[in-house]
Amino acid sequence: MAAAWHLKSRPTGLPTADNFEHREISLPALEDGMVRVRNQWLSVDPYMRGRMNDVKSYVPPFQVGEPLEGGAVGEVVESRSSDFQPGDRVLHMMGWRDEAVVPAAALNKLPTIPGVEPQAFLGNLGLTGGTAYWGLLDAAQAKAGDIVFVSAAAGAVGSAVVQIAKAKGMTVIGSAGGADKCAFVRELGADAVIDYKSGIPLVKALAEVAPKGIDVYFDNVGGEHLDAALALGRKDARFAICGMIDGYNSGEPTALRYLMRVIGMRMMLKGFIYTDYLPRNAEFFADMGQMIASGQVRGRDTVVEGLEKTPEAFLGLFSGANTGKMLVRL
Amino acid sequence: MAAAWHLKSRPTGLPTADNFEHREISLPALEDGMVRVRNQWLSVDPYMRGRMNDVKSYVPPFQVGEPLEGGAVGEVVESRSSDFQPGDRVLHMMGWRDEAVVPAAALNKLPTIPGVEPQAFLGNLGLTGGTAYWGLLDAAQAKAGDIVFVSAAAGAVGSAVVQIAKAKGMTVIGSAGGADKCAFVRELGADAVIDYKSGIPLVKALAEVAPKGIDVYFDNVGGEHLDAALALGRKDARFAICGMIDGYNSGEPTALRYLMRVIGMRMMLKGFIYTDYLPRNAEFFADMGQMIASGQVRGRDTVVEGLEKTPEAFLGLFSGANTGKMLVRL
Repeated sequence: MAAAWHLKSRPTGLPTADNFEHREISLPALEDGMVRVRNQWLSVDPYMRGRMNDVKSYVPPFQVGEPLEGGAVGEVVESRSSDFQPGDRVLHMMGWRDEAVVPAAALNKLPTIPGVEPQAFLGNLGLTGGTAYWGLLDAAQAKAGDIVFVSAAAGAVGSAVVQIAKAKGMTVIGSAGGADKCAFVRELGADAVIDYKSGIPLVKALAEVAPKGIDVYFDNVGGEHLDAALALGRKDARFAICGMIDGYNSGEPTALRYLMRVIGMRMMLKGFIYTDYLPRNAEFFADMGQMIASGQVRGRDTVVEGLEKTPEAFLGLFSGANTGKMLVRL
Repeated sequence: MAAAWHLKSRPTGLPTADNFEHREISLPALEDGMVRVRNQWLSVDPYMRGRMNDVKSYVPPFQVGEPLEGGAVGEVVESRSSDFQPGDRVLHMMGWRDEAVVPAAALNKLPTIPGVEPQAFLGNLGLTGGTAYWGLLDAAQAKAGDIVFVSAAAGAVGSAVVQIAKAKGMTVIGSAGGADKCAFVRELGADAVIDYKSGIPLVKALAEVAPKGIDVYFDNVGGEHLDAALALGRKDARFAICGMIDGYNSGEPTALRYLMRVIGMRMMLKGFIYTDYLPRNAEFFADMGQMIASGQVRGRDTVVEGLEKTPEAFLGLFSGANTGKMLVRL
């Protein structure tokens, strides 16, 4: 029997283990055009929290009593499609389970890139790396010479932002929580690191390491981080608004003391979504693939073992348990 | 003797009459290259409140004990510059006084446009009309067919936004405070008007008149208005951030409940400053001049009589005393 994690109840505020239920599932008989996949790697990502609310967004909400979904890399074990053979490595969206029957049209065969592990397609060559790449270079129009501030710089997206920005000739300031994560961000090549758990107000900490201000802010956090970036943004600063993990669970309004500076400094804030850039994947694979091959961008994963620990891995995203990409290995 | 209003003390919060002092001034002897101007129209504008704080911004702060400055239209009475003759109508920045000695380089001779009064260069052909024009068409990239929401739509900038947007084929929703101002905004051609003093929460009021959402928001107000626009912005919505009069005096942070929608809806917020567009004045005069000549854009001024009432006119901007452009006639 296969098994899958189901949404047992919608979280209010921070999710807990009680919101998830592990249940056996019976897979349908394999019809024409369908493929059976044994999952090997599951992705858990902060955006999934939004899908647990019953609100319309850019992705439809999860349904109570139904299996959860998310990025997964697996191996084809049985196929009734001529496009896939047993043994093929594939990327698809039926994660949170050990085995899935997937329409061939919803599967992506993974290209073989020397030295690149298949789980990279859930990370630096997938959602998190693509989010970093397009947010920095397209939404924020960052260019060589810019001073870039990125929040949650030890996270999957943030650590890719740091490395891409350095590869492209920018000065990078990252924020992270705690000494270990700050050391990791420094190892990634950041020119300066702010420990947001140090007790120093963020505006003050950022002003110290960016006395001339910042040109670009890559926002993964919202709240105080966004306000500090508004306080330090200089003329024509551009903000890529990627995520606001501070607000996903709280429901509190964002309080901004420095918002008015967008006028005097002619700042631009731009929200963006990774999937809008999927048509440009070839461009992304070429440029990012080269940065990975040359060692300019390295992945670092936090790996949790076993399907049964998937909710734990997901909850860890909100307590800062991960450095780099959080993955579940089956 | 000439007279000028001086900054007596820096306001904290809402300015009061006590912050201003009317004093006689002695004009310097007229040296080569200098021109003596008798002012006829003075402009008071919300941005002046910012200059009363002792903080660096896009314009330097006013100094305590010194005369205030601002847009003024006057007539040359004496000239030691070959570029200006007595009788010439000029635009300059030495307002808040009845007479001024101004370097020729800081004076702009007003072109004669049939049917256009000289004070229009303080309004629809000046700072407020230019702010409306460039904010709407450049910062927000508004185009025919867009649904545009503009706050403070009965004010000088807002009323120009409403009329330009209609002239360019957009649907326009304006907000204003009270029945008289709302009637005025409707007369300007707005498709729908929201009375923000009605007690109905702005998000609800905007959702009722914009069931499909908005494409463009022209922000003169900040605070709740901005939050309502964030709540209703649809995919690829663009916000021109022009002013935040709600926050100029309060010092309170802006609380935004709907900020996170910028991500899912890929919204863009852009701050801008009118003076950045001065190099494109010829383009602006041509297009806006035509809209004024054809009657598509009309000015409406609130006129206060006499230099001694200048602070009163300025304070009236914050209590909603003006419909359209607030001017002082000497």
